[in-house]
Amino acid sequence: MTLCEPLAPEDYRVQPMPDVSPPWWNIGHTSWFFARNVLHDFGDYTPDFARFEFALNSYYEALGPRLARARRGSVARPTTAEVLDYRSRVDDAMTTLLARGGAEAWPEIALRTVIGLEHEQQHQELLLSEVLAIRAHDPPELRRPYCEPRARTTAPAAPMRFVPVTGGLTVIGAEGDGFAWDNELPRHRAWVDDFAIADRLVTCGEWLEFIAAGGYRQPLLWLSNGWDEVQAQGLQAPLYWEERDGAWWQWTLRGLQPVCPAAPVCHVSFYEADAFARWAGARLPTEREWELAAQRFGFAPDAGNLLDDRLEDDALQTVPARGDGVRQLAGDVWEWTTSHYEPYPGYRPFRDALSEYNGKFMDNQRVLRGGSFATPREHVRATYRNFWHARTRFQFTGVRLAR
Amino acid sequence: MTLCEPLAPEDYRVQPMPDVSPPWWNIGHTSWFFARNVLHDFGDYTPDFARFEFALNSYYEALGPRLARARRGSVARPTTAEVLDYRSRVDDAMTTLLARGGAEAWPEIALRTVIGLEHEQQHQELLLSEVLAIRAHDPPELRRPYCEPRARTTAPAAPMRFVPVTGGLTVIGAEGDGFAWDNELPRHRAWVDDFAIADRLVTCGEWLEFIAAGGYRQPLLWLSNGWDEVQAQGLQAPLYWEERDGAWWQWTLRGLQPVCPAAPVCHVSFYEADAFARWAGARLPTEREWELAAQRFGFAPDAGNLLDDRLEDDALQTVPARGDGVRQLAGDVWEWTTSHYEPYPGYRPFRDALSEYNGKFMDNQRVLRGGSFATPREHVRATYRNFWHARTRFQFTGVRLAR
Amino acid sequence: MTLCEPLAPEDYRVQPMPDVSPPWWNIGHTSWFFARNVLHDFGDYTPDFARFEFALNSYYEALGPRLARARRGSVARPTTAEVLDYRSRVDDAMTTLLARGGAEAWPEIALRTVIGLEHEQQHQELLLSEVLAIRAHDPPELRRPYCEPRARTTAPAAPMRFVPVTGGLTVIGAEGDGFAWDNELPRHRAWVDDFAIADRLVTCGEWLEFIAAGGYRQPLLWLSNGWDEVQAQGLQAPLYWEERDGAWWQWTLRGLQPVCPAAPVCHVSFYEADAFARWAGARLPTEREWELAAQRFGFAPDAGNLLDDRLEDDALQTVPARGDGVRQLAGDVWEWTTSHYEPYPGYRPFRDALSEYNGKFMDNQRVLRGGSFATPREHVRATYRNFWHARTRFQFTGVRLAR
Amino acid sequence: MTLCEPLAPEDYRVQPMPDVSPPWWNIGHTSWFFARNVLHDFGDYTPDFARFEFALNSYYEALGPRLARARRGSVARPTTAEVLDYRSRVDDAMTTLLARGGAEAWPEIALRTVIGLEHEQQHQELLLSEVLAIRAHDPPELRRPYCEPRARTTAPAAPMRFVPVTGGLTVIGAEGDGFAWDNELPRHRAWVDDFAIADRLVTCGEWLEFIAAGGYRQPLLWLSNGWDEVQAQGLQAPLYWEERDGAWWQWTLRGLQPVCPAAPVCHVSFYEADAFARWAGARLPTEREWELAAQRFGFAPDAGNLLDDRLEDDALQTVPARGDGVRQLAGDVWEWTTSHYEPYPGYRPFRDALSEYNGKFMDNQRVLRGGSFATPREHVRATYRNFWHARTRFQFTGVRLAR
Repeated sequence: MTLCEPLAPEDYRVQPMPDVSPPWWNIGHTSWFFARNVLHDFGDYTPDFARFEFALNSYYEALGPRLARARRGSVARPTTAEVLDYRSRVDDAMTTLLARGGAEAWPEIALRTVIGLEHEQQHQELLLSEVLAIRAHDPPELRRPYCEPRARTTAPAAPMRFVPVTGGLTVIGAEGDGFAWDNELPRHRAWVDDFAIADRLVTCGEWLEFIAAGGYRQPLLWLSNGWDEVQAQGLQAPLYWEERDGAWWQWTLRGLQPVCPAAPVCHVSFYEADAFARWAGARLPTEREWELAAQRFGFAPDAGNLLDDRLEDDALQTVPARGDGVRQLAGDVWEWTTSHYEPYPGYRPFRDALSEYNGKFMDNQRVLRGGSFATPREHVRATYRNFWHARTRFQFTGVRLAR
Repeated sequence: MTLCEPLAPEDYRVQPMPDVSPPWWNIGHTSWFFARNVLHDFGDYTPDFARFEFALNSYYEALGPRLARARRGSVARPTTAEVLDYRSRVDDAMTTLLARGGAEAWPEIALRTVIGLEHEQQHQELLLSEVLAIRAHDPPELRRPYCEPRARTTAPAAPMRFVPVTGGLTVIGAEGDGFAWDNELPRHRAWVDDFAIADRLVTCGEWLEFIAAGGYRQPLLWLSNGWDEVQAQGLQAPLYWEERDGAWWQWTLRGLQPVCPAAPVCHVSFYEADAFARWAGARLPTEREWELAAQRFGFAPDAGNLLDDRLEDDALQTVPARGDGVRQLAGDVWEWTTSHYEPYPGYRPFRDALSEYNGKFMDNQRVLRGGSFATPREHVRATYRNFWHARTRFQFTGVRLAR
Repeated sequence: MTLCEPLAPEDYRVQPMPDVSPPWWNIGHTSWFFARNVLHDFGDYTPDFARFEFALNSYYEALGPRLARARRGSVARPTTAEVLDYRSRVDDAMTTLLARGGAEAWPEIALRTVIGLEHEQQHQELLLSEVLAIRAHDPPELRRPYCEPRARTTAPAAPMRFVPVTGGLTVIGAEGDGFAWDNELPRHRAWVDDFAIADRLVTCGEWLEFIAAGGYRQPLLWLSNGWDEVQAQGLQAPLYWEERDGAWWQWTLRGLQPVCPAAPVCHVSFYEADAFARWAGARLPTEREWELAAQRFGFAPDAGNLLDDRLEDDALQTVPARGDGVRQLAGDVWEWTTSHYEPYPGYRPFRDALSEYNGKFMDNQRVLRGGSFATPREHVRATYRNFWHARTRFQFTGVRLAR
Repeated sequence: MTLCEPLAPEDYRVQPMPDVSPPWWNIGHTSWFFARNVLHDFGDYTPDFARFEFALNSYYEALGPRLARARRGSVARPTTAEVLDYRSRVDDAMTTLLARGGAEAWPEIALRTVIGLEHEQQHQELLLSEVLAIRAHDPPELRRPYCEPRARTTAPAAPMRFVPVTGGLTVIGAEGDGFAWDNELPRHRAWVDDFAIADRLVTCGEWLEFIAAGGYRQPLLWLSNGWDEVQAQGLQAPLYWEERDGAWWQWTLRGLQPVCPAAPVCHVSFYEADAFARWAGARLPTEREWELAAQRFGFAPDAGNLLDDRLEDDALQTVPARGDGVRQLAGDVWEWTTSHYEPYPGYRPFRDALSEYNGKFMDNQRVLRGGSFATPREHVRATYRNFWHARTRFQFTGVRLAR
């Protein structure tokens, strides 16, 4: 809940666009997940808990009717205080249940509890992206940064290099020892042709060149749906970028900042990423290529720009690539791949209501890999599959090129 | 601000439908009205006041760009605390200006200040209608009444009688001594044929008969636009009515109440009022007929069910008609007339920005007369012209028949 | 059917915008009117006639389900040949019925037949407006005029003069000898204040001044709904006007023509008419003022620019005002009045299904008076009330000022 | 043009839904393809040809502005006669160009001409699907079959069997000797796990069981977007199915026919196919599995139910599976695969304007394989990749299961 400290009471309630849930809902929903999936079946589920089901169910058809997502910002109840009280009572009931332990149901309780904790980590990142959207949509004269500005190094980025990767018959997917989502399984064979991958993320400086070259005005660079989006939304730059007197600024969690040329570009859609790659004479990697590259070059969350309790100087923002080799794989920004989100061969969803967690969304979305500065450090893996619709821009999304 | 006492912090922010502004906005906007129309031209208008212009301007094209109405519920700033602080500073600056007095500009200052006060009274009623809508749209398991329930008399309503009124060449419009809106002027002659008017408002009991007779299923009772609305919205009863186990309930400021057969029906659109009248073999009055009736039978706010500081037992809800004669003209519910909202012959709008107050809305709206239990007692007059689009239901609107 | 001679088979089928029905439908619907309202009740109504009911019913709820208006252009059946055959068979059956005569039902047969004929005249004007819209929406490189271009006199218009009219207690509405629609009745008294009326219609030359003065860019000239329309549609000139190399052209039934400065402006909405009047320091007349002016200055269809079989040189287009005095009252273009379309005091709709003809549309429309060059000469009267939604532009609508 | 013989003039013009172009457009567009891509660069391209560019360009941004797809049914020009004349003149100019031959440009001329011919074959199938949609949307009392009804065998379908396929490292994509679309290239290696494939298509009889089992009412069977579609469209059966007195009928090119239990189900979306597969305890194949199955079991257009000049008794409709083994791979109905439409590794689009032919649509579509009874026999291949949005139902699409 440290993440909520900078929030005003108003920040908890508003929904500036349908995709963005208000924080009260995130906070309540993550507790509801434990209440409905664990306490309801194995613990002490009170009638009062039931009163919150309608408001806090997200999309589980198996778990009853629910408040439409687009209406989460238009209700005044549950109040934030009621949500916090609900959360506290769910926490207590979970503690009681876990302390009691021992039953035959224990493996299922443990599994659902772990999923609930991983789920909550996902919502930590969501919360940050939503707070950013909420602050960005406030009237310009009155908006406020989420946290203190920090000056960023202005050293130029090293030139991007493409590093060859020898393909072949590879093994993709999570190995079974730690937690993995059902969509990372089963581990399976896949053929990957030889390819080359960029040693760092695309920078804002490179994006400025794309803008200057008319990238947003050349239809042949874009997928058809992407070009429709450019025209319908009047896109001219990444989300939250603003041009003032010829200079580009970006609204961030740390307020309005000059665009940092050496830092990775953030808040671009798959369509923008794909058009940029075409303009650059390259392409985006497939998710299998990306995972193979992570196998070869190493995936090291410990060293990455990710979210953790040490909120250091550089935290909560993009930072320029440091060092050598294929870097920035873990953290910084999620990397769009060219792969639609599909089940792995032999995919088996979680059971019961949790079968709705991942499988039903495997349609018309693109996979992203690697994590961002808003992803909890212990949450991400080389095999982790994030996914969003190709037009999404409010998440912390960027670009790595391949050839 | 007494009206705001029952509000939770969340109630100030949400906008359950585009027509309904969140209370923070009402509170800020009414102060902005003084700031921008009085202080800006004659008083001490600081840069900080200017920062609120974009957020608090309603629809004045002459006064600059503004936050779209539909987005008032999707911003977190100004926060409620910032709004209350702004309000307090505007009040102070107004007090200073009015105390200073004396200048050549005094008549204009006085006029705009009076308009600002009348404007604020209008927003008191709006606020109550909006709070009702906000509470009504909360998840059913969690919603809360605005104030305490009160049992209502269950005595049946006296039968409705039609009282003849002799027409002729009449004089319509405000007499010039007290305040009147520009739309009540000029006082002018109009011919009115003889007619008869109902001695009381249509009751909920009569509306139940209309429902039982299939009134919502017979297209020939309805105006074409009204029937489209019935079908598009699936209308079956007045707004906020709910059928449970065969009995009808109504969500009100005093919570969920059994429909009171003797009380005036409330929250019906013009289309519903018009269809009901046709079903009853009658019609709605024109606004000139209504005003003539008020001249003949008297318009007495002092005795009416209106809003004032004495929040007595019966306050903030409809009550059955009492006594004899043509009654309930002042207060209870606004009465739809069949007259579209048009300028009186020789109409001259207020000057400058205030020319936008009334005139530009004289298109495709219907006039309502008489006031409601949520209208400040000192605000209403026999010549007062309220107006809403024919499909509006969230205001405190009801029906009086004519022939 | 002479009006259809210039049509290609394709012209009969398309619906360039939802308001514009394809001609096949007009031709079928006018016959359906006789079939369903006369033959069905009094004549020889075959099962084959019944097969056309769904396709040809316009908006009569009492007469069964029907093809949605917006879908009339998206069906291939009935084919045009089937419609013409149906029309011919309805004509034959009507001839037989009328020849048989004599029954007790005769007054009702005669009334409905006359209404059917008047109805058909209305659709003649509709047809011309629809053909114009169809041709205008064809790809510019391929579109074709409906009839031959004719050079128009280039003499300048005489200056507009305002002629005073003494008001008082007047009598409004149709006198009972000839046919009149139910909405022109009953004849009733009304008070009209003194006013002045323009002696001719507003010209295209005057409209060019309005454009040059920024009329389409000044929100304070417009009703609120009108300004929304200007912005949503990007309005900059009357419908069908095109600017090419600094000169204005207009697409007409006679093809693309230079805008004729002395001719009346045509294809403007009520909102445009109202804004123009405000810009000109005048206003539009009420419909009662207009009717009183017609009583005083004479309404002479014989001399007006209306539709008849003599398709003379000037036919089917606007022409500059000729002569002296208050002129152009009959024909040229329909004249927007400021009056919403409401029932006259004591209004009684036609009976049965025909009660839906006029009454149910008395909501959010504005009355127009006088007729246009596309109105059949024998169809129009001084008391005739045409009505359209305020945003309508595809009809032959223009402007006369009042003060 | 034999396909057009049963069309009435009206059938050429209408567009019953935005996806369905009117036949005039198909006929013109396929000629425009030759005119703009061949004649314009290498032949005799007249100004008159240029007049048709706006109307007949489909989606080529590189080739200039164009009539919006949704408006193709709302223009009357070019008339059908003008289109046929244009087509004839393009044919003549192409004949002249091809006879002239010999130039350095010949390889490019030949390539574009072949692409133009293949393009025209695609539009033959489109035309049939569009004619079916047009006839289906006519008013029920008046609609007509495209061709004569034929009784279908009523023998029951043999039980569906799953045939195992041993996977491994396979080679996918077109071999270079004959024509292939750019999206079938390059031929590349892919790993496929062992799987089993159904020996025939899913039948209407099996679909009736799915309906009876409540398949359209169980959200857990559906992808999230699919369930949204079920609810928004009220889906209860395949497109064109109608229930009458408890029996199911289907509107087809041969008119209204009883649903044939042994024939393959047709006109289902990917969402329906996917839900059916889940209900049946199976899944859809990937496109690589499908292609491998075709390699193993043979793909024989000569023996398939495809479109050719011999319009035999069974032509233009689905027919029950005959014989043994894995059958119905070529023809009958297109088979949805679970694969999103993506570029093959190393994909290179056609050059210049034709780069827009396939590549820009590789987003949020699903691949279909195998051809239908409306696909020209010589058009289809085992490597052919058809693609549509997952919600598409008006094409001739069906289901083959895998495990």
